[in-house]
Amino acid sequence: MQPFSPSVLHALRAATPGLENSAYFNYAAQAPVSAKTLAVAQRLQNEESARWPHLGAPMREQTEIARTALAALLSADRDEIALTGGNSHGWGLAFAAMGPWRAGDRILVGRHEWGGNLAAMALCAGQAGARIETIPCDAQGAVDAAALEAMLDARVKMIALTWLPANGGLINPAAAIGRIARRHGIPYFIDAAQAVGQLPIDVEKLGCDVLSGAGRKALRGPKGTGFLYVRRDFLPRLSPVFADRLSALTDQDGAASWRAGAARFENAEASQALHGGLANAVEEALALGLENIRAATDAAAQSLRARLAAIPGVAMADLGRDHSGLVSFQMDGIAADAAARRLAERGVTVAASPAFYTPLDMQSRRLDQLIRASVSYLTLDEEIERLANAVETLRR
Amino acid sequence: MQPFSPSVLHALRAATPGLENSAYFNYAAQAPVSAKTLAVAQRLQNEESARWPHLGAPMREQTEIARTALAALLSADRDEIALTGGNSHGWGLAFAAMGPWRAGDRILVGRHEWGGNLAAMALCAGQAGARIETIPCDAQGAVDAAALEAMLDARVKMIALTWLPANGGLINPAAAIGRIARRHGIPYFIDAAQAVGQLPIDVEKLGCDVLSGAGRKALRGPKGTGFLYVRRDFLPRLSPVFADRLSALTDQDGAASWRAGAARFENAEASQALHGGLANAVEEALALGLENIRAATDAAAQSLRARLAAIPGVAMADLGRDHSGLVSFQMDGIAADAAARRLAERGVTVAASPAFYTPLDMQSRRLDQLIRASVSYLTLDEEIERLANAVETLRR
Repeated sequence: MQPFSPSVLHALRAATPGLENSAYFNYAAQAPVSAKTLAVAQRLQNEESARWPHLGAPMREQTEIARTALAALLSADRDEIALTGGNSHGWGLAFAAMGPWRAGDRILVGRHEWGGNLAAMALCAGQAGARIETIPCDAQGAVDAAALEAMLDARVKMIALTWLPANGGLINPAAAIGRIARRHGIPYFIDAAQAVGQLPIDVEKLGCDVLSGAGRKALRGPKGTGFLYVRRDFLPRLSPVFADRLSALTDQDGAASWRAGAARFENAEASQALHGGLANAVEEALALGLENIRAATDAAAQSLRARLAAIPGVAMADLGRDHSGLVSFQMDGIAADAAARRLAERGVTVAASPAFYTPLDMQSRRLDQLIRASVSYLTLDEEIERLANAVETLRR
Repeated sequence: MQPFSPSVLHALRAATPGLENSAYFNYAAQAPVSAKTLAVAQRLQNEESARWPHLGAPMREQTEIARTALAALLSADRDEIALTGGNSHGWGLAFAAMGPWRAGDRILVGRHEWGGNLAAMALCAGQAGARIETIPCDAQGAVDAAALEAMLDARVKMIALTWLPANGGLINPAAAIGRIARRHGIPYFIDAAQAVGQLPIDVEKLGCDVLSGAGRKALRGPKGTGFLYVRRDFLPRLSPVFADRLSALTDQDGAASWRAGAARFENAEASQALHGGLANAVEEALALGLENIRAATDAAAQSLRARLAAIPGVAMADLGRDHSGLVSFQMDGIAADAAARRLAERGVTVAASPAFYTPLDMQSRRLDQLIRASVSYLTLDEEIERLANAVETLRR
């Protein structure tokens, strides 16, 4: 079910520079921004340098505009949002604030956890003797909430879930896991890099304490932007490892204290022009409606899956029952990176998702890499046809 | 001595949008970027969204171009440089990597240390029982290297210096302190936010282990950029608290290890378009010559100091013998923030430097705030005259 009419879709694509450069199936890496988002960010950059320094510094309001838009996107409160330099930046700041770790601490992770998060856990908590343990999956390959509950004991200090993994269409049961985490009072981190801007999100329904997102993926915000949600009641349990002039406050006696709210995780020197661009991207997504975006993305993904599945020698590789806009598959006799290169020669952009993006899952499934074709509400039927035809050509 | 001829200066100013908007004396907060730096960053932003995702991802080379330029700027090696989101971001990442802190650890700081750094030390190390102690100053108000040496014992874990403080013209004896730090094997952090792009810098001569800088100040780079230098031999002593897909490497068995070099402190999701802009700004500074920039800045600052000092009711407030381009003063009967507002009404942009920028120094001198007029090699004699005349008018 495509909620956007052909004329609306045409207008949205016309307002997006660069879509003509290929049949684009790599939204999961980076989505092209709208011309307006780019124009907002660049107008603010011009003013940031040439105008505002002479007149005072009202650029900071761009951060607040972005904060307001992001709070609406997540059904969160403004004081639960921090602007960051990307998904991993926010996730990492919150994770570092969970320390110090002790020998015997347990961190439970979904099998599809993002490799960067796993590296942070291993290098920063594992060194202290904390154990990173993988939650079993159900028969469809999604994180098994019941299995999680059976693992819990007093040594479990954190549950980490990558909601939509980077290597395929799985949508993990984030809310079911949240109910268990909340019931047992265990801190629960969601990496929502691929979910934000693609699915409707309500942090209260998810039951998470921390959720991170990137600007540049489905949200179509500028590269170099992201955000961190920290639940208000959870904030006091975090000990930030970074402070600057705005994240901390210094009183007249020189005593320092943390700024109120999640904004204590912000970098005061960030580009507020990019924050303004991100705010515009979020507002555009809210105006389209996240339910509509989800429906349109799902329609494109289902159409692509059906088309690819019918091609001999193509094996679909998505786990789970419900699927995101990330479509993963393999081609008999052609490695994923070679397939991506050869499709690129035909004007079709897909990604090869390497093992280190999602190492636990790829090891478990004995996979080196997968072809990943990720769609958007901007994806055209003609593009799906072009990708499928190119795959058929390669198979011959 | 002004090394740039009037015609060169005219051309440099003509290539800098916005200088006509006021007589600008707030380079220490943010310097206007050149039209070319802005154009480079924005061209890359356009390509980052519309072109490169379709063709692969050569944007990352912008980070490497910036790294090369910054290494040349600091007389460092490329593998000792990390791109960051600002000065405090880099300083904070390195400081967090010094932990864990223990009760009784001593951190020795210059009296002019940046308030954000002091907050980080108090909130992240002070909580663990580490003590932050101020190194005495000499008769001119600069950090006293001999006094520092007398404080040293086995519990001193770090020396932190803000080289050019935010609240005036002092240039602290960074190299003399570095010789002592090196001799005693104590980690030595320099906050060079105000020095970078204003003074010639040779990290080996400074003897520092860590040095942080901002893009947006004297370097005239884009807002939201900065860098961190970590001396190669010092790097193994740091335990980073942040990891992402590029700062850490995951091998085939899923084991994580830190990336080689200081780049392990980088955020893989940063805006490489802004890195390209920063690279251009650094290359412009290198082409002008840092000795020339220093001489021109110093000439403008000396001229401004002489002019202001002759005005009745104006008290110059710069500490130290050698002075930077930051000129600090007070006006009888007019608070600094009120003076800044009233000068702005006359088309002259200065800053009021509040106590919390440099809390230890301001408390020591019993100051609430200071007027700060910071110059650049772009500063004109006519602008100095305009500021001085406006100050005279306010005094009447």
